[in-house]
Amino acid sequence: MPGEFDFIRTYLSERQTSRQDVNLALGDDCAIVCPPPNARIALSTDTLVGGSHFLLSAAPELVAHKALASNLSDLAAMGARPAWMSLALTLPEIDENWLRPFFDAFFALADDYGIQLIGGDTTKGPLSISLTVQGFVPQDKALLRSGAKAGDWLYVTGKLGDSKAGLDVILDPTLRGQPFASELEKRHFLSTPRVEFAQGLLGIASSAIDISDGLLADLQHILERSCVGASIDVSLLPYSEQMAAFVGERDIACQYALTSGEEYELCFTVPEQYKAYVDSQLAQETELHCIGKIESQGHLKLHDSGQPIDWQLSGYDHFKAS
Amino acid sequence: MPGEFDFIRTYLSERQTSRQDVNLALGDDCAIVCPPPNARIALSTDTLVGGSHFLLSAAPELVAHKALASNLSDLAAMGARPAWMSLALTLPEIDENWLRPFFDAFFALADDYGIQLIGGDTTKGPLSISLTVQGFVPQDKALLRSGAKAGDWLYVTGKLGDSKAGLDVILDPTLRGQPFASELEKRHFLSTPRVEFAQGLLGIASSAIDISDGLLADLQHILERSCVGASIDVSLLPYSEQMAAFVGERDIACQYALTSGEEYELCFTVPEQYKAYVDSQLAQETELHCIGKIESQGHLKLHDSGQPIDWQLSGYDHFKAS
Repeated sequence: MPGEFDFIRTYLSERQTSRQDVNLALGDDCAIVCPPPNARIALSTDTLVGGSHFLLSAAPELVAHKALASNLSDLAAMGARPAWMSLALTLPEIDENWLRPFFDAFFALADDYGIQLIGGDTTKGPLSISLTVQGFVPQDKALLRSGAKAGDWLYVTGKLGDSKAGLDVILDPTLRGQPFASELEKRHFLSTPRVEFAQGLLGIASSAIDISDGLLADLQHILERSCVGASIDVSLLPYSEQMAAFVGERDIACQYALTSGEEYELCFTVPEQYKAYVDSQLAQETELHCIGKIESQGHLKLHDSGQPIDWQLSGYDHFKAS
Repeated sequence: MPGEFDFIRTYLSERQTSRQDVNLALGDDCAIVCPPPNARIALSTDTLVGGSHFLLSAAPELVAHKALASNLSDLAAMGARPAWMSLALTLPEIDENWLRPFFDAFFALADDYGIQLIGGDTTKGPLSISLTVQGFVPQDKALLRSGAKAGDWLYVTGKLGDSKAGLDVILDPTLRGQPFASELEKRHFLSTPRVEFAQGLLGIASSAIDISDGLLADLQHILERSCVGASIDVSLLPYSEQMAAFVGERDIACQYALTSGEEYELCFTVPEQYKAYVDSQLAQETELHCIGKIESQGHLKLHDSGQPIDWQLSGYDHFKAS
């Protein structure tokens, strides 16, 4: 590590109150942590590459939020409580004007979720942010992709499609004149990982995934791992008024809701016996939408209030692949 | 993740026998692992950037070895037993001719050390390999940088300097005519992390670090964290005949031994009471050299069989900074 990078070590130290279960963080060959008795540890790694996952001109605080939120969302998708993380940061140069807002936003979000930075590596090279996050799940209770059964109800949290609309604006500045363009652009970066909510799904949901590649693509992972099919009623898809105004047409709004990636909302399935509980209790504090049902057939079907949609014709397939 | 990257997922699955403590690896939002009761987990992250830490033309199997070995060496430096790892791999393209030898070498070394790949992320971008490795240390027994005391003896494993000589050859192909050039080039990549040996240091060594930045620089970390000084007798520095022949002069060979990075040998300190045990028992199976002593003064001094060396004049300082 070149000497100039030493300052980062100083810069990162004592930014967070140490968790009780962290024996040693930053500054030795390894960090040392002490998991609780009988803990199951959930672990996920996600990398954002500058110029590929975000424009190099993107605001550093937004990049920091996106990098950490996308990782926290993976923990949420398992029902895990965040605990520790390590950061592999590759930088073309030491630019304090970039690093300061980056780390301010990074640690602010980390503190909100009780996750401590315990290790990492800073190297010189093309900008890249890779995080490995860890959290705890109760034994045999993790929310897997593989537990959905025919007859289960299909839910999503929040609203879908804003992230894709925001990305449109980022990639094509001529769209800045469209309604709510700047608001949608921010929403592309500023998701809220559903960590707290997911705790309530433990023992209730039969499967879960976070929406990072788009609802259709991510639901497909559940269907494959669970060996089931599903049907979605597109008339029940939740999307924001802002996104609807931005894209202008209902059909396109539905397409956006189905295919928008990097939403970091949860898609999950609920057995019939727990549906009333989910609708009455869990829906009180978090926006939830029941959008369809798991079926025994190994396919994903769309309908519009009962009218079948041929998605080959409707263009959904094109969006799915894009 | 672009569709073409899907093949990597397939390519990585079922390459290793699953450890008993891995409940779920690869293929869900998170991996899930189950640490042993009362375990302390040691964790380290190291990134190798293509074009910076290795030439883009380097053989993929050598790059794989270097990436994993450097991380295993961090576990060794704490006295930790390797358990799990996650890999953040950024690739400019999917080149099976590169990936196949890379992963063959990667998994061969991983299996040698009993460490399982449980998660990761593959992204498109400039070549970069970031690993987060985890292992177990007995409670309160980890080898830290902070435990050295005045009077302790200073040891290193193996021989030092080959890695720097090999790097010379890599960076300046006109040196290929020098004695042992191609052998030293390979040694730059093919270190042997001292994982097994480090187990024997638990409860014996008062501090330890692995030599990644060069003996002088890494020992300095021990001295700073332990608030002590040290003296090294350069006449006791271990180096290979091949390196000595390559550089041609004894003084330069000593400089290489003092400053060569990426050696992944261990530097450790031993209290007087354990010296006989280390010399008689531990030295039986692993090459060990006692090269100096920890002192109460907060400086690092060099001497040559008792003759003080002024390292400002001798050029050591230049090497240290390079």
